[in-house]
Amino acid sequence: MQSLTHTDFLNGRVRAWQPAQGYRAGVDPVLLAASLPAQAGQSALELGCGVGVASLCLMARVPGMTVTGVELQADYAALAQRNAAEAGVDFTVEIADLSALPADLRQRQFDHVFANPPYFQRDRSTAATDPGRDIAFAGDTPLAKWVEVAAKRCAPKGYVTFIQRIERLPELIMAMQPLLGSLEVQPLTPRAGREAQLVLIRGRKNGRADFRLHNGIVMHEGPEHLHDGEDYAPKVRAVLRDGAALPFGG
Amino acid sequence: MQSLTHTDFLNGRVRAWQPAQGYRAGVDPVLLAASLPAQAGQSALELGCGVGVASLCLMARVPGMTVTGVELQADYAALAQRNAAEAGVDFTVEIADLSALPADLRQRQFDHVFANPPYFQRDRSTAATDPGRDIAFAGDTPLAKWVEVAAKRCAPKGYVTFIQRIERLPELIMAMQPLLGSLEVQPLTPRAGREAQLVLIRGRKNGRADFRLHNGIVMHEGPEHLHDGEDYAPKVRAVLRDGAALPFGG
Repeated sequence: MQSLTHTDFLNGRVRAWQPAQGYRAGVDPVLLAASLPAQAGQSALELGCGVGVASLCLMARVPGMTVTGVELQADYAALAQRNAAEAGVDFTVEIADLSALPADLRQRQFDHVFANPPYFQRDRSTAATDPGRDIAFAGDTPLAKWVEVAAKRCAPKGYVTFIQRIERLPELIMAMQPLLGSLEVQPLTPRAGREAQLVLIRGRKNGRADFRLHNGIVMHEGPEHLHDGEDYAPKVRAVLRDGAALPFGG
Repeated sequence: MQSLTHTDFLNGRVRAWQPAQGYRAGVDPVLLAASLPAQAGQSALELGCGVGVASLCLMARVPGMTVTGVELQADYAALAQRNAAEAGVDFTVEIADLSALPADLRQRQFDHVFANPPYFQRDRSTAATDPGRDIAFAGDTPLAKWVEVAAKRCAPKGYVTFIQRIERLPELIMAMQPLLGSLEVQPLTPRAGREAQLVLIRGRKNGRADFRLHNGIVMHEGPEHLHDGEDYAPKVRAVLRDGAALPFGG
């Protein structure tokens, strides 16, 4: 692996080594972690955890969680293990393809299963300039497979939560609706009046509540990006800086 | 059929006979009609047209359209035919089960197919006090069948548009996604900050654009219903009173 950088999240409460080039964690895993309705002491499984940013943010917010991460790419998994060790939290990372989980994981179920799957379908016409980045952006595993594995590994009454580009919401709904109940969709809109570009979606194992579509959470203040500094809305700034929760429905 | 009432829509530009008891058209068919991206002279098919309010509103807004309605219940269909005749527009109503359309309709395709299907699954534990109302509220035909027939009868590049309760959005997406492209969802929220209760959804035959989730259109002004009069938001009032269009995305 190439050179590394040490990046701060949650105003430094979480620090993570990640490749200087390639796939780098942005705000999306932080938002995902903030959205989980997790309670102290619960267990969680992150599929495709990369260097572990979402899991580490979750553990920084909710005390006493036991989290397992699965990552296909060995170099990212190694960084996640290093990040976990340096954070001193109960975060175990296994190198595995999510469609062929190790036997120990196939025998466990978790209170939460969550993922920030690749945002694009692999485009075979484009040569990868960085294989790691390529897999993280556009994986080979269909989104339906991510959902299927997540639902299987989710305990009764547990939650499966994904973050994804809005374009793939129909695909996620089609995959989740037969396997999970109580589906809820939380759009994330870049600015007031703009269409959602990202979406959080969760389902509950054996849930029976009606489907809910929440109003979009607005990420940035003002009509456009006018200056170099941040312009996150207060609620989002509290998530990114103070490690606040971001419950569905705001 | 029992006694009838003559109801005004679009400030009297559309008048429709409907049963005094039973299923009565409210604002939903008016909103549906206003949302269609229809152009002068195009053709349209309404599935489950009831007494024809949505089709008549569409024809009042868009000049020169040729519209066909299909209605299972003979007494509602007869009222739709009477309403069409009194309006003097090119609106033909056929009495048919949408899953067994007459041969002439099975050979035609339309620029638009639209529907306001029953909002509830039939609950067999509840005895119907009014069979007509019962079928209009909770039909026997699965929502997926409505979508399948609509997609079949839609011309290439034509649009299929449905209005439905938000709870059934996953079901609609699952039915539309394999048969139509360019899916767009337009939530309708009762008031600012409240969750959507109704949703418009449309797909395009052979469409290839990305899925879009529009921000909710707010129906009513103010935080709650404070007085007896109307409190529709200006955009919605323009639809209901002046026959304005209600394009997806506001």
